[in-house]
Amino acid sequence: MQKVPTVYDVAALAGVSIATVSRVFRKPHEVSQATQDRVHAAVLDLGYVPSGSARSLAARRAGAIGLCFPDFDGIDGGPAPIAYADGPVDAQLDPPEGVEPSGDLYISEVMLGTELEAWRHGMAVTIAVARGERGTEIFDNLAGRVDGMVTLSRTVPERLLAHIARRIPVVVIAGPRAGDEYDHIGTDNVAGMQAMTKHVVDVHGIRDVAFVGGPADSPDDHDRFEGFRAGLLAAGIVAPPEPLLRGDFTRGHGRILGRRLVEAGPVPRALVCSNDQTALGVLDALLAAGLRVPDDVIITGFDGIDASEMSRPRITTVRQPMRELGRAAVDTLLCRLGDPLMPPQTRTLPVTVLLRESCGCLA
Amino acid sequence: MQKVPTVYDVAALAGVSIATVSRVFRKPHEVSQATQDRVHAAVLDLGYVPSGSARSLAARRAGAIGLCFPDFDGIDGGPAPIAYADGPVDAQLDPPEGVEPSGDLYISEVMLGTELEAWRHGMAVTIAVARGERGTEIFDNLAGRVDGMVTLSRTVPERLLAHIARRIPVVVIAGPRAGDEYDHIGTDNVAGMQAMTKHVVDVHGIRDVAFVGGPADSPDDHDRFEGFRAGLLAAGIVAPPEPLLRGDFTRGHGRILGRRLVEAGPVPRALVCSNDQTALGVLDALLAAGLRVPDDVIITGFDGIDASEMSRPRITTVRQPMRELGRAAVDTLLCRLGDPLMPPQTRTLPVTVLLRESCGCLA
Repeated sequence: MQKVPTVYDVAALAGVSIATVSRVFRKPHEVSQATQDRVHAAVLDLGYVPSGSARSLAARRAGAIGLCFPDFDGIDGGPAPIAYADGPVDAQLDPPEGVEPSGDLYISEVMLGTELEAWRHGMAVTIAVARGERGTEIFDNLAGRVDGMVTLSRTVPERLLAHIARRIPVVVIAGPRAGDEYDHIGTDNVAGMQAMTKHVVDVHGIRDVAFVGGPADSPDDHDRFEGFRAGLLAAGIVAPPEPLLRGDFTRGHGRILGRRLVEAGPVPRALVCSNDQTALGVLDALLAAGLRVPDDVIITGFDGIDASEMSRPRITTVRQPMRELGRAAVDTLLCRLGDPLMPPQTRTLPVTVLLRESCGCLA
Repeated sequence: MQKVPTVYDVAALAGVSIATVSRVFRKPHEVSQATQDRVHAAVLDLGYVPSGSARSLAARRAGAIGLCFPDFDGIDGGPAPIAYADGPVDAQLDPPEGVEPSGDLYISEVMLGTELEAWRHGMAVTIAVARGERGTEIFDNLAGRVDGMVTLSRTVPERLLAHIARRIPVVVIAGPRAGDEYDHIGTDNVAGMQAMTKHVVDVHGIRDVAFVGGPADSPDDHDRFEGFRAGLLAAGIVAPPEPLLRGDFTRGHGRILGRRLVEAGPVPRALVCSNDQTALGVLDALLAAGLRVPDDVIITGFDGIDASEMSRPRITTVRQPMRELGRAAVDTLLCRLGDPLMPPQTRTLPVTVLLRESCGCLA
């Protein structure tokens, strides 16, 4: 049986992206005459017919979706060797200072969501981490064995992503749309942090609020800070141009920031933190310095990780639907496979403000 | 280029398992003459040469390892539809009673470990959950696209597993070896619980110890209870034939058991629980009834989940190397691909007893 040509074949033959093929059909006036000619020549050459179901069936030939993560753990030279049991069981004192919740929760949840939605559609999920020096090669190999790719933002260089997107559709999770033609899935960072800030100001009547941020190059942090500013501005409070302090999104760094706040004193009446781990670290430091939360200082977080409801007091936070990110990415990818010519999608998932003890809503 | 025949081709042609082919070479006296003849005929017919590297290269043609989990979440009719953001952010009071740590941690950690070890060897990992009515079909499809399969015990019926194992090697995680010919990876449940029990008896000087178990059909629970009995017997204490109570490994059920213990009173001086979530539930119930832990009752767990170090007091427990299970499974699978004729492997990973506040080792 001869393979039914797809829009990807047309794009490859014409040497353009599938988005360009799409524009030639939908908005030819936006495309140069030379490009239109190349695309139409490829369409004729291949006998391409843009009829939904045939295209969809042909496109799903691998039966698998790729899921590629950035190098989140930095294990490059390889992890420690695997130890097998060959002696008595080791017992050790485990003092509390070692507590650092797993930073891999986000990735795990996205994996589970991706699997779930792929399962609903009878697809498998092939996962890979673009880790270490072979990162781009791993990404490229993965792209060669799947029908479409879901990836977290900043997993591989933009040039490689654009290269892959000429062959298969790409859905990007949690990245800013920068004039690209991928489908994007994100959470409502701005609205979530705005609602959180508004809650602190309006319900708790506090105007002395500071933002404890994450890395300056994090798009999530950027959006959350914008939401914070919008929340203040809506209440008629002058919003600062920059976060009061910046950490690196870890609890350990949060503790350092907390200690710095205590030393600089007086600590603002409310600290709106850019993620839960920062909030937990700040909480650790403030409690250690004898401050009461929420009586002296209100602390809020963002993400809704398990650890945020296991601290005392529990952290008031904005819950991200992490598993839903994976599900929505697959959902969007399958829509794209079924209709390669639809315009680039941006889908935003709703967040939920969870009111707990660290803001004083619960005692 | 002609494909190099592998031991799998020989097994398929002869209509036997690869373990049988292996025995024909290594221990012919254990195999019937008729089977030996069929295998030797297939070897001649295919031109099979059992030379390590050629075989290994030929066997790794898919470049991917399959990882299949049992239906852990029971989402059969399909999960709720994905909601996209289209209104104001929802804010809600989040009272503490809802705390139930994710039961998917084990699966997530095995996934991350599998990915890591596969990455080290330049392989991808394709994941699937044998969920719902199509469970066996999903498993079978996955097997068709990978070089070998890692699976948790009881993911699919034994007959299907045996069927798959005729085509590709299978490594089973956390299952008892029942005369089968798969490679097995497990943790040292018996030694871990024995060391935990010995600690409670020897270090804390307690002889009034009871075991709070999990489901009666759980191999993990079975082994842990055996470890508990061995720990008591070594101290000269008469070991009960059955756990005092059984739950279902959830915190919710642990709370029910805890309340039952309080009502029946007096509560044993130490409660050795079969997993952390049960221990956490029992802790919730005992604290709510006004008992002091560890002063009135010592509680211990097993697994080492994050939640076990976020409770107050933190739970003394036995840590399973969950991520290492995934790594060791891939390591074993790659050894098997490189040497299909090695005898079936059973590899056990060491556990660690973590001494915290719930037994009184830390204050």
